[in-house]
Amino acid sequence: MGKNLFEKIIASHLVSGTMTPGSEVGIRIDQTLTQDALGTMAYLQFEAMGVSTVKTQSVSYVDHNTLQDGFENADDHRYLQTVADKHGILYSKAGNGICHQVHLERFSRPGITLIGSDSHTPTSGAVGMVAMGVGGMDVAVAMAGGAFFFSYPKVIRVNLYGELQPWVSAKDIILEMLRTLTTKGNVGTVVEYAGPGLAQLTVPERSTITNMGAELGVTTSIFPSDELTRTFFKAQGREDDWCELGPDKDAHYDRVIDIDLATLVPSVACPHSPDNVRTIRQIAGLKVDQVLIGSCTNSSYRDVMMVASMLKGKHIHPHVSLGIAPGSKQVLSMIAKNGALSDLVAAGARILESTCGFCVGCGQAPQTHAVSLRTNNRNFEGRSGTKDAQVYLVSPETAVAAALNGVVTDPRDLNLPYPKIVLPPIYDIDDSMIIKPSNDLVVDVYRGPNIGDPPKNTAMPTDLKAKVAIKVGDKITTDHIMPAGPFLKYRSNVPKYSNYVFYHMNPEFPAKCRNNREQGFASIIVAGLSYGQGSSREHAALCPMYLGVRVLLAKSAERIHSANLINFGILQLTFVDEADYDRIDVDDELTIDNIHEAVKQEIVIVRNVTKGLDMKTSCNLTPRQRDIVLSGGLLNYTSKAK
Amino acid sequence: MGKNLFEKIIASHLVSGTMTPGSEVGIRIDQTLTQDALGTMAYLQFEAMGVSTVKTQSVSYVDHNTLQDGFENADDHRYLQTVADKHGILYSKAGNGICHQVHLERFSRPGITLIGSDSHTPTSGAVGMVAMGVGGMDVAVAMAGGAFFFSYPKVIRVNLYGELQPWVSAKDIILEMLRTLTTKGNVGTVVEYAGPGLAQLTVPERSTITNMGAELGVTTSIFPSDELTRTFFKAQGREDDWCELGPDKDAHYDRVIDIDLATLVPSVACPHSPDNVRTIRQIAGLKVDQVLIGSCTNSSYRDVMMVASMLKGKHIHPHVSLGIAPGSKQVLSMIAKNGALSDLVAAGARILESTCGFCVGCGQAPQTHAVSLRTNNRNFEGRSGTKDAQVYLVSPETAVAAALNGVVTDPRDLNLPYPKIVLPPIYDIDDSMIIKPSNDLVVDVYRGPNIGDPPKNTAMPTDLKAKVAIKVGDKITTDHIMPAGPFLKYRSNVPKYSNYVFYHMNPEFPAKCRNNREQGFASIIVAGLSYGQGSSREHAALCPMYLGVRVLLAKSAERIHSANLINFGILQLTFVDEADYDRIDVDDELTIDNIHEAVKQEIVIVRNVTKGLDMKTSCNLTPRQRDIVLSGGLLNYTSKAK
Repeated sequence: MGKNLFEKIIASHLVSGTMTPGSEVGIRIDQTLTQDALGTMAYLQFEAMGVSTVKTQSVSYVDHNTLQDGFENADDHRYLQTVADKHGILYSKAGNGICHQVHLERFSRPGITLIGSDSHTPTSGAVGMVAMGVGGMDVAVAMAGGAFFFSYPKVIRVNLYGELQPWVSAKDIILEMLRTLTTKGNVGTVVEYAGPGLAQLTVPERSTITNMGAELGVTTSIFPSDELTRTFFKAQGREDDWCELGPDKDAHYDRVIDIDLATLVPSVACPHSPDNVRTIRQIAGLKVDQVLIGSCTNSSYRDVMMVASMLKGKHIHPHVSLGIAPGSKQVLSMIAKNGALSDLVAAGARILESTCGFCVGCGQAPQTHAVSLRTNNRNFEGRSGTKDAQVYLVSPETAVAAALNGVVTDPRDLNLPYPKIVLPPIYDIDDSMIIKPSNDLVVDVYRGPNIGDPPKNTAMPTDLKAKVAIKVGDKITTDHIMPAGPFLKYRSNVPKYSNYVFYHMNPEFPAKCRNNREQGFASIIVAGLSYGQGSSREHAALCPMYLGVRVLLAKSAERIHSANLINFGILQLTFVDEADYDRIDVDDELTIDNIHEAVKQEIVIVRNVTKGLDMKTSCNLTPRQRDIVLSGGLLNYTSKAK
Repeated sequence: MGKNLFEKIIASHLVSGTMTPGSEVGIRIDQTLTQDALGTMAYLQFEAMGVSTVKTQSVSYVDHNTLQDGFENADDHRYLQTVADKHGILYSKAGNGICHQVHLERFSRPGITLIGSDSHTPTSGAVGMVAMGVGGMDVAVAMAGGAFFFSYPKVIRVNLYGELQPWVSAKDIILEMLRTLTTKGNVGTVVEYAGPGLAQLTVPERSTITNMGAELGVTTSIFPSDELTRTFFKAQGREDDWCELGPDKDAHYDRVIDIDLATLVPSVACPHSPDNVRTIRQIAGLKVDQVLIGSCTNSSYRDVMMVASMLKGKHIHPHVSLGIAPGSKQVLSMIAKNGALSDLVAAGARILESTCGFCVGCGQAPQTHAVSLRTNNRNFEGRSGTKDAQVYLVSPETAVAAALNGVVTDPRDLNLPYPKIVLPPIYDIDDSMIIKPSNDLVVDVYRGPNIGDPPKNTAMPTDLKAKVAIKVGDKITTDHIMPAGPFLKYRSNVPKYSNYVFYHMNPEFPAKCRNNREQGFASIIVAGLSYGQGSSREHAALCPMYLGVRVLLAKSAERIHSANLINFGILQLTFVDEADYDRIDVDDELTIDNIHEAVKQEIVIVRNVTKGLDMKTSCNLTPRQRDIVLSGGLLNYTSKAK
């Protein structure tokens, strides 16, 4: 039987394991990327490994913390630039653009493997490569030449056919996917797009789909590399990087989903989850305070030109604040040259820096109770920087319609001619903001006062004695666990950043953990379904670890977060009987005797001392993962192995 | 004897008083402006006055807090927009530009009077009008139709002659003024520019000089309105707003300063004061980390075009972060259309929003110990957002030279052809981001949770019993007293913002004041020379008042701050014998018996109970000002008068 596309690429990179769903495989990594919010930890961990030059093509992007409301961000940038210079890493300066947009433009390549310490790394899957979001520790290991280990996934084929109607675009396709598959239950799955519908989706449009595929919770999403891909590479001056790559005709898939593009309509993900999808007409007329266009999901030349074409010669509604952040220097430069930027400015748009910004709550926090329409990928409660803001995720077309009318509007109801966006035969190419490394080991790596060493965990004790420090519900995101926004600047300073774990849910959590420790207890987090959705930020594991959390006891957890828990030595246990979740309360004392042996069993018994009952849990770790957790994390495990 | 220009405009607006230096005059105000950082308080005070529609042409600009790292800023913006709509005030949305740049472009007019709750309001003096920075309370009174009171100043004539050499520009002229006059001792002075040198200074260049004249501590700066002014108004589509206006040939001046423009060289204000002026060659070769171009001082079309011309076809040094914030929507739109923006992007510049931003520490905080070259007007310690950063103030030309070379460089040493910047015969004119008010009293003024009522003071007690809460040195700026940057978002919430008074000098100050109050003592601030330099932020008086400060005892204080102290009921006393400053310590108990009578005497005796000695001080208040202070501030005084 033939191979699907994902299978082909993994097979050509396989280092260990067998490619059957659920088995652990190790693969060779060709490229890595980091961004500044999560990159400092990755490079600190890389430095701790004592390797002089990276073994991968690695790019360090600065795109998250560019507001710089204190010395911390600029200190981090300088650290990143000097560590990159020393160890052979390309450094993309602040202002060069959003990592995924720039990586797609300048570094993506069919058939290769990329891991990045950002959950939207799958964006580059748009050109037929395997691109996965991981924790920073995994990036560090790959840069040092180590394999990347993950659980081999099931592969779903999504068959696109039919013709997209005017005003319906790639964002509406991924919203349809989210409506169908939701954000839960897709761990261990890869989505492979196929079918005749591909012929009308250019690479930038495909990248909107692979990008927001992250919200499905899948391992990655991938498109074949075809003639449209070739056109993109040619326009990027990189035709030599292109090759044709697709699944075999008789490839096996674990599931097939058919989507008739002709039936799709402008859609919206309503607060506070990307899978809370409605048609835009279902909420039409809702008064809008803020519209924001950009982010790694919708900031390509195609998207910004669509926005400019719709706004040309018009003025936005006086009550709306419209912000536009072009995705990269390339996009900004081209819309500056062709007059589109003038059209945006004339219409009343605020031109924001080419960064992630508002998407991660770094700026543009809306007013209290605001309705904010955005083209980005996540609308988790509070992520915008305003706790009670209502964030709706839409296409650029739908965003503009709201900016013009001041209320939610189906773009088909604007009665405008549908703009035809023609992609340029050749993009502006200028990589001067990507600084080449000197690979000079005498480079003095800059460490400002905000840069600390990554804290290490200790080995798991023989008998675990712990107290429940917090009990949370379903779909708790990494934004809930480790908020970004104004706290993100402390990301290189774990003792300080740890003070904000669960800040919006229970600001007393860090104090409770410290108190548990003083009384001789470890801490436990109890959670419902899909714990750890969203970003790949390893601080959502690292900071709880620093506070003394030893165990996550949940109904289920998401892939990247589970991997981060392992890397930092936190044991993830799953309820065998979900009803046990209701039998635990905060401050209950839980114990696991002889834990090093217990976790090898199919069933791990957790004793609730307070309630006087035993609970059955399962521990789905490979022997390697188990060793890492019991060693107290990957750094300890690696040192031990040496 | 003939009149000077300042005299002519004041004479045509005089409501009360006599125009002799030192006498209090009241004048009719034609226009007011506010910005968002200080505007909320002004409008809250205006609302408290119960007047339905403003009596002035008033513009409310949003240009300071546009990063929006929490709900507070957007809440404030919505408050400002709705209160403007209701009471007849024009509202310039975030993204439309920096207040002074936009006001110059769209609202300035020869011969009129403008007060603004921002210390750089004198910018519009470039077209021959009297524009003064004041506290928000004074703006509120003017909007309600009241006169503006101030001490009639001495007028200095600055005679410009000779020809500016290539690479020397307006910024170097105002730096020369600062070198000559310093930031101290110019209270009660107006600078009037004249002479043959004017012929080579366009309005935007003149506005750089009037703008940064604020750093001299003068009441305002003014240029005559001449043919070059007419050219500017014509290009702004407002030729009808122009008239010729200048001093009489035989006008009297209190002092004349001659500056030979031919002798000026590229200069720099070194850390941490705008008057610490050197030639750029004196510090050439210093490694530069950051270069920032923009602010109300140097963000005009002329300045940004100079920058773009110098950068065209080049790349900045890889170690430098270069940010450029065009001053207004008009500037941004024009450089987008003519290709200059592309040149900036291609050279590696970060394009920042058209706001005040970095100048007031709202973003772009440099790394620890950084050398930052900036085109703005203030380099007070810590104002950049990074306490130990070294900020140097330069012209746009000098800023670009450093960005290209990575070290401080005299632009004359670049060996580039000197660009000739031709101003456009007609600027892009689009006022669609300036929202016209409905004047509809049923408008529901939005009050988010960050908007509080302005706190009132109480009347001065009969006998003052107080403790010294802090003792500070010379040239303490309003940035020292009431830091902006990350705290600025609390400006509409006085109880919260008050927690940060003197934050960088002594974070215990608010606690000490509260403690004094609990013990039955008022608090006193003891200071050296030129207390209250810099911004017009009335929070530097309002928040200490809220904490219980009743008296400032200083060697001298600056004009706008003194006026704010009066408006909020804080008594300013000046040492008769400056040596007494050395005889006071923190926590000393000071008393003034029968203070209501005492302040009417030439000498006010302050008893230092702790040291057992009496000090002679003076109280330079007019009877009206004295009544305001004793009433506990202008709001109480006005209510009492009703």
